[in-house]
Amino acid sequence: MTHLPDQGPQPGIHDLGYARLDTDRLERTGDAEVVYGAGKTPEQVVELLRTLHATHPGNAVLATRLTVEAQEAVAAALSAAVVDPVGRTAVLGTPPALRGTVAVVAAGTSDAPVAAEAATTARVFGANVEVITDVGVAGLHRILGVRERLDAADCLIVVAGMEGALPSVVGGLVGVPLIAVPTSVGYGASFGGVAALLGMLNSCAPGVTVVNIDNGFGAGVFAARVARRAAPRETKDDV
Amino acid sequence: MTHLPDQGPQPGIHDLGYARLDTDRLERTGDAEVVYGAGKTPEQVVELLRTLHATHPGNAVLATRLTVEAQEAVAAALSAAVVDPVGRTAVLGTPPALRGTVAVVAAGTSDAPVAAEAATTARVFGANVEVITDVGVAGLHRILGVRERLDAADCLIVVAGMEGALPSVVGGLVGVPLIAVPTSVGYGASFGGVAALLGMLNSCAPGVTVVNIDNGFGAGVFAARVARRAAPRETKDDV
Amino acid sequence: MTHLPDQGPQPGIHDLGYARLDTDRLERTGDAEVVYGAGKTPEQVVELLRTLHATHPGNAVLATRLTVEAQEAVAAALSAAVVDPVGRTAVLGTPPALRGTVAVVAAGTSDAPVAAEAATTARVFGANVEVITDVGVAGLHRILGVRERLDAADCLIVVAGMEGALPSVVGGLVGVPLIAVPTSVGYGASFGGVAALLGMLNSCAPGVTVVNIDNGFGAGVFAARVARRAAPRETKDDV
Amino acid sequence: MTHLPDQGPQPGIHDLGYARLDTDRLERTGDAEVVYGAGKTPEQVVELLRTLHATHPGNAVLATRLTVEAQEAVAAALSAAVVDPVGRTAVLGTPPALRGTVAVVAAGTSDAPVAAEAATTARVFGANVEVITDVGVAGLHRILGVRERLDAADCLIVVAGMEGALPSVVGGLVGVPLIAVPTSVGYGASFGGVAALLGMLNSCAPGVTVVNIDNGFGAGVFAARVARRAAPRETKDDV
Amino acid sequence: MTHLPDQGPQPGIHDLGYARLDTDRLERTGDAEVVYGAGKTPEQVVELLRTLHATHPGNAVLATRLTVEAQEAVAAALSAAVVDPVGRTAVLGTPPALRGTVAVVAAGTSDAPVAAEAATTARVFGANVEVITDVGVAGLHRILGVRERLDAADCLIVVAGMEGALPSVVGGLVGVPLIAVPTSVGYGASFGGVAALLGMLNSCAPGVTVVNIDNGFGAGVFAARVARRAAPRETKDDV
Amino acid sequence: MTHLPDQGPQPGIHDLGYARLDTDRLERTGDAEVVYGAGKTPEQVVELLRTLHATHPGNAVLATRLTVEAQEAVAAALSAAVVDPVGRTAVLGTPPALRGTVAVVAAGTSDAPVAAEAATTARVFGANVEVITDVGVAGLHRILGVRERLDAADCLIVVAGMEGALPSVVGGLVGVPLIAVPTSVGYGASFGGVAALLGMLNSCAPGVTVVNIDNGFGAGVFAARVARRAAPRETKDDV
Amino acid sequence: MTHLPDQGPQPGIHDLGYARLDTDRLERTGDAEVVYGAGKTPEQVVELLRTLHATHPGNAVLATRLTVEAQEAVAAALSAAVVDPVGRTAVLGTPPALRGTVAVVAAGTSDAPVAAEAATTARVFGANVEVITDVGVAGLHRILGVRERLDAADCLIVVAGMEGALPSVVGGLVGVPLIAVPTSVGYGASFGGVAALLGMLNSCAPGVTVVNIDNGFGAGVFAARVARRAAPRETKDDV
Amino acid sequence: MTHLPDQGPQPGIHDLGYARLDTDRLERTGDAEVVYGAGKTPEQVVELLRTLHATHPGNAVLATRLTVEAQEAVAAALSAAVVDPVGRTAVLGTPPALRGTVAVVAAGTSDAPVAAEAATTARVFGANVEVITDVGVAGLHRILGVRERLDAADCLIVVAGMEGALPSVVGGLVGVPLIAVPTSVGYGASFGGVAALLGMLNSCAPGVTVVNIDNGFGAGVFAARVARRAAPRETKDDV
Repeated sequence: MTHLPDQGPQPGIHDLGYARLDTDRLERTGDAEVVYGAGKTPEQVVELLRTLHATHPGNAVLATRLTVEAQEAVAAALSAAVVDPVGRTAVLGTPPALRGTVAVVAAGTSDAPVAAEAATTARVFGANVEVITDVGVAGLHRILGVRERLDAADCLIVVAGMEGALPSVVGGLVGVPLIAVPTSVGYGASFGGVAALLGMLNSCAPGVTVVNIDNGFGAGVFAARVARRAAPRETKDDV
Repeated sequence: MTHLPDQGPQPGIHDLGYARLDTDRLERTGDAEVVYGAGKTPEQVVELLRTLHATHPGNAVLATRLTVEAQEAVAAALSAAVVDPVGRTAVLGTPPALRGTVAVVAAGTSDAPVAAEAATTARVFGANVEVITDVGVAGLHRILGVRERLDAADCLIVVAGMEGALPSVVGGLVGVPLIAVPTSVGYGASFGGVAALLGMLNSCAPGVTVVNIDNGFGAGVFAARVARRAAPRETKDDV
Repeated sequence: MTHLPDQGPQPGIHDLGYARLDTDRLERTGDAEVVYGAGKTPEQVVELLRTLHATHPGNAVLATRLTVEAQEAVAAALSAAVVDPVGRTAVLGTPPALRGTVAVVAAGTSDAPVAAEAATTARVFGANVEVITDVGVAGLHRILGVRERLDAADCLIVVAGMEGALPSVVGGLVGVPLIAVPTSVGYGASFGGVAALLGMLNSCAPGVTVVNIDNGFGAGVFAARVARRAAPRETKDDV
Repeated sequence: MTHLPDQGPQPGIHDLGYARLDTDRLERTGDAEVVYGAGKTPEQVVELLRTLHATHPGNAVLATRLTVEAQEAVAAALSAAVVDPVGRTAVLGTPPALRGTVAVVAAGTSDAPVAAEAATTARVFGANVEVITDVGVAGLHRILGVRERLDAADCLIVVAGMEGALPSVVGGLVGVPLIAVPTSVGYGASFGGVAALLGMLNSCAPGVTVVNIDNGFGAGVFAARVARRAAPRETKDDV
Repeated sequence: MTHLPDQGPQPGIHDLGYARLDTDRLERTGDAEVVYGAGKTPEQVVELLRTLHATHPGNAVLATRLTVEAQEAVAAALSAAVVDPVGRTAVLGTPPALRGTVAVVAAGTSDAPVAAEAATTARVFGANVEVITDVGVAGLHRILGVRERLDAADCLIVVAGMEGALPSVVGGLVGVPLIAVPTSVGYGASFGGVAALLGMLNSCAPGVTVVNIDNGFGAGVFAARVARRAAPRETKDDV
Repeated sequence: MTHLPDQGPQPGIHDLGYARLDTDRLERTGDAEVVYGAGKTPEQVVELLRTLHATHPGNAVLATRLTVEAQEAVAAALSAAVVDPVGRTAVLGTPPALRGTVAVVAAGTSDAPVAAEAATTARVFGANVEVITDVGVAGLHRILGVRERLDAADCLIVVAGMEGALPSVVGGLVGVPLIAVPTSVGYGASFGGVAALLGMLNSCAPGVTVVNIDNGFGAGVFAARVARRAAPRETKDDV
Repeated sequence: MTHLPDQGPQPGIHDLGYARLDTDRLERTGDAEVVYGAGKTPEQVVELLRTLHATHPGNAVLATRLTVEAQEAVAAALSAAVVDPVGRTAVLGTPPALRGTVAVVAAGTSDAPVAAEAATTARVFGANVEVITDVGVAGLHRILGVRERLDAADCLIVVAGMEGALPSVVGGLVGVPLIAVPTSVGYGASFGGVAALLGMLNSCAPGVTVVNIDNGFGAGVFAARVARRAAPRETKDDV
Repeated sequence: MTHLPDQGPQPGIHDLGYARLDTDRLERTGDAEVVYGAGKTPEQVVELLRTLHATHPGNAVLATRLTVEAQEAVAAALSAAVVDPVGRTAVLGTPPALRGTVAVVAAGTSDAPVAAEAATTARVFGANVEVITDVGVAGLHRILGVRERLDAADCLIVVAGMEGALPSVVGGLVGVPLIAVPTSVGYGASFGGVAALLGMLNSCAPGVTVVNIDNGFGAGVFAARVARRAAPRETKDDV
């Protein structure tokens, strides 16, 4: 069944047939488009990464949510790409000079994939990144022991599943802008991350914002934007 | 265990044992019954399509939600059938003269299967169809660039997942009747399309109606009924 | 606390301080903006209606969801206005020549306010309107008795609360485009209209679309747009 | 790790180690215990059926929710058993003289497994059973054509998925006690049968009761208890 | 705004303007229509009761969900009416000879209004009624003490709020058909009766059916239909 | 409408007409029945308290969820009663010698009513009680400053609304049995306490149990039962 | 009933009996504690504001969610306070030199209270604030007309109810860090702001973070923290 | 992509790279950390068990939620470990002298895995354990037959799926502290254990606390803490 002919070429759009890349986005928002790997074939991921890289040679370009097959295809086809099996990301090219620091804080070891996605994203989007893991609230000495490093960052990403209490505790310790990322870690009445999401939305610590469940990418974009426009701080001796 | 004998033959019903075709529907509603493929065997799909086609030789008959196996069985058994692996549909026969135009608009590439099902259905049900894809709201120039084509249609089907914002934007641009189709594209708090569904039900643009998640078929039926009874428009030069 | 100065005047916008009327909407979509009365003071409703009427003297302008106080204020201040206490609407001015016919069908007497809002809206937006009430599915002879009138309409609005089954029954009787409106009539597990909403979204009759709970206005806008562009039908002898 | 010794033998309980059969139930409630197959191994199903049959030689005993493997194991081990692959049940033994009639009515072909489970259960629990299928509300002539047979039954079981409207329509046609069974047939906003469940709980037809989603068994037990204690009716000439 | 003329008179319908009584229902289903008082004015309730009584002089007619004002209006206008302030019902006229027995069992004192509505309804619909209250599962000796009376009934209505466990316990004691009615008694995670509703739908006792939250009326209709067609039992010496 | 006669007297039950007191409960469970004030008239509360006190003169008896009117009626009629307007409770009589210690810990000042209900209940049920308030996790020094007092208790009740993170923090600090009580304090996505409830059910600290939203009473009963059977601890010097 | 003595004085805490102010928070996080007015008496609000002001004379202190009574009490008792009836806030004292700019963008006039709370909060927490209202997506020219002003801000707060689509559109236009605030504006399937919340969490525009429904305060705190540490921008000529 | 260096060593933490063991927990809370097996490789489970055992040679250490592969790896690598395939646990080492008794009560055979996890956990955490299975409320004689044994325990764990009614019945029989564990046993409207969870949270029996769905571990920890600090009881002759 032949449909009527589709739309013709438009400025600011690169049409690959199965996708139309928004090549104008870097100009418009300061950041290039990203390859969201879910539902795409390994071949499409490779082609999209290559095309984006050709369009933006002076930036790093990113692919997220890659299947194992897509990771292998990228590694085979694009030797310059850096593939992270934990965060399921691939990066091609080098970001411009990094500015500011994002600290990614994760409650438990099961939150590592989301934390890794957030960390990689923030760096691709132009910020230095520090990762602090396994500091859940059931052992407070762990998070209290890194308080100064939290305070020295320009933006915090706090990743937690289950009851999602870590952002409230961190948000009470320091006044750094804090993005909470609920993860789908948990079972039963965690409802795939809903319990953590609700906990974070209702945090008693002021100044906590939240992204979608497992959305390390969105948190990384946001945090990089905050960090890279932050004025240099005098107290960041320890970074 | 033998149950009591089942009901006997009834007028307007064609009994195949595992299904009773409502052969009276074309007379009653102007449209023939359709084969809903989910849960049916490839053999049943083939037989149902063949039977419907024999009953309604002057119409196109449609099967939806076909598994890959069912698609292959239809292609093998019914050489005249047109099978669409993207929309997972099969069509047998030719629709009567097409009247009016339905524009199917999709936000992202992941929404393609639902858009294809809607487009095929609208055409089988008697309308011309135009497809416009990958015009999500995060790059407004894409949708603004097709405004005139939207305005020229007799009915719009707008397909979107995630937050489902596209119908609100389109509904503010033109006054054409608009059916919004939420898709299950998304993750986490998209809850399998619920976020998009709620967004569309609460659209601030007046005159937006909504169908079930991923229900391209229902939107196609409705839009074709609107388009094919629309009076010809003077401004549709570009179609 | 003085904030920075707000935005200046913009074309296509009439700024009243507490609201900015989109005076360009008639040009853009074919329909003027409407006063949504919820949360507005009686004085604001009166001023908005008067301003819209002055901007669009050749059209009828509409206010919906009016409190009793707002209804009384409109009646007192705008003697030409037609106030409907059942549908909680007010209309000022006369719509252009009406085209096509919308049939508004309501399941029970408790659905009357939503049906009235839908009917008034459809007429203000330019369609003839016919209202058929109290034809719930628990007494099928009532809906079967009006089948021909349903079939003669250009668009149907079917209003129902509780289990919301009426659209499925009507949608199986005729092939006219059908918009289902769930109402918040019910108790317990009706969850304020959610049961009816879900029932309508899952209708087994093809070609049913749905609007938000109690959204007679949205259904009226949509139906009028369908009806007024419909070609005259030969079979509508009985209207 | 050895736990303290478990409880010893108790009257009215037959302990098989992995299950304790409530052999007193027939005496207490008039009906023997049933083998719920979900989560049990084929061997356990066979042994439980055999044990129940030995305990209640004068009754039929029933196993439900059998996997294909369990069905095959029962057929191989218990040659007297009647296995139904549609309803996923097995029956061993003969029920006492059947009394009264249960009519099982199903909306669509996809509802067949639940209808079959209900029908088999009602017969094992002592009632005559009549099955009427594919009479969904989108083609009313189908259900209107069997009105007299519905009226002649002592109890009705009405099975439907999607919007679950059929019980409301049937409940408005006849005054026979009616048990509605929502099925998980549907997609998207059907939420695995929740839409149908809510629709049935909110039925506008008086005297409709509801069981859990896909619970043909529960409906069958209840209906049989109603039918077998019903006084013979004078009007049931057609049964 | 004048709408097109409404539908004319139809057989089997008594049109009061604000409502159309289904006077054919008694013929069709064996039971007369009922006045659902929610959302109706006291005057409407009085007129509807009077009209129904005039149409069905040989039956009792019922009004439910009456406000205090409506109860007072009925008592003042219709001296023959029996008004029950606990169940919020009014009854006019006498039911035909009662047949069979319905036992209404309530868990707690807060469930009394729903139990009273169920009891009155069952009697109006033609069954003898026995009421057993305050037999919640937290004091098992209370329900065990009435086991024989439960067993002697033809149909049971079991009313409970909070966790809704009583139907499971009763359903394990006797084999009488059992309708469970969840009530909105509770707080917090009872979600207005949802916890009890879910508990009853998932009852481990076979043969439990459920109606909507607080729907004593629906349970009463159903139970009366079961009881009045039950054959006389030999063991009911104690009734 | 006269129903059949209700049940006669039963041992272990004191029938007041509108309620049947389970006077056997003290014997059976070690604790007397309690007056749940919600939905009861002030006169009923007074009579129930007086009756319970007369039945159990050696114990304290408790009424909860009292309206202001009920509180005043109790104070006027029962001069020996202790009424707490914060926790909305009344106590009549003296508990036996208190054993063990329950520490009630509350996150914020808005949680005070629930904490007070828990504290009063625990004391009536026989435990010493210590109250620690306003130690929310957004200021960790507050909870860290009372760590030794937490450790010295025999059972902890931790009350919190919003995200409900306090039990996780406390549960990581000490190994005392901990009952978490979610409160309805919050707004928006707290959903009346659901966010706190889910947070507590998913606590990453082992050994946290939970009661219903705002259920200070239930927590108090449970904690007293734990505390009063605890063996004296050697380290409780500071209590 | 006398409980055991409560905890004694602690450093960093100012105990008012009904509340314990966290006077250490300014030192710890850079921002003073705030008076959350919900559930507090007018007298408590006045005393808390006065105490916070005395503790932090060099800062502005803020009270939010004030009832009309509390607003009047503050205006009467604290003549230096600035009370905003729209945002329901009161401010006492002057913030230090403002740094950076927060733009608060609201979709509709009904969102004004939440936008006002956000704007006042951001200024009290040390940022310049610009407010842009009534730029909903159904009239795109309104938001496109202010694109440059959006781009010039250091942080954006985007407030919207109903479907909450505005953040996706704004987030596609500029690369400024963006905090989305869902409001409870809407009806039916908006579920008190849930639809907007889900829409924002699933935004297809990268870099959108979200706060609780109606939480203008939280968004203001976060945005001020971002803005006041932002390096001066060269392109902000138009501010 | 190389991130900045991670945090260095900290006291009370044993860093294995993929996890940081909280070796201080035994000191802090009286109980060692536990290996939560979900999402861990068999090799990680073995190493974590071995490390924990080496750190706490005088205690038993526990791993839960083990896959079949992890169970086999533990059995192969750690010959002293006791692996329970029903409860999916492994235990290494011997607990100190057991004190007090926990009774684990399960409603149905399908609840066995959760009951086994609870029983093993309670014993590892230092309590004697008694297991009572298959005593669901639909056959009350089963639970009434073990009443004395329930009364003799120091703490009860009551495990049930479906409607979760067993804790209410047990909580009305004895006054022993009772922890209810909802299981995900059920289908349809059980929603994976939500129905049982809500039922238990709303139990009408006072003093019932609840843990997450299927959380036998949490219940075991809590119950052991209660039991092992309970004073010896005089009435426990039958244990």
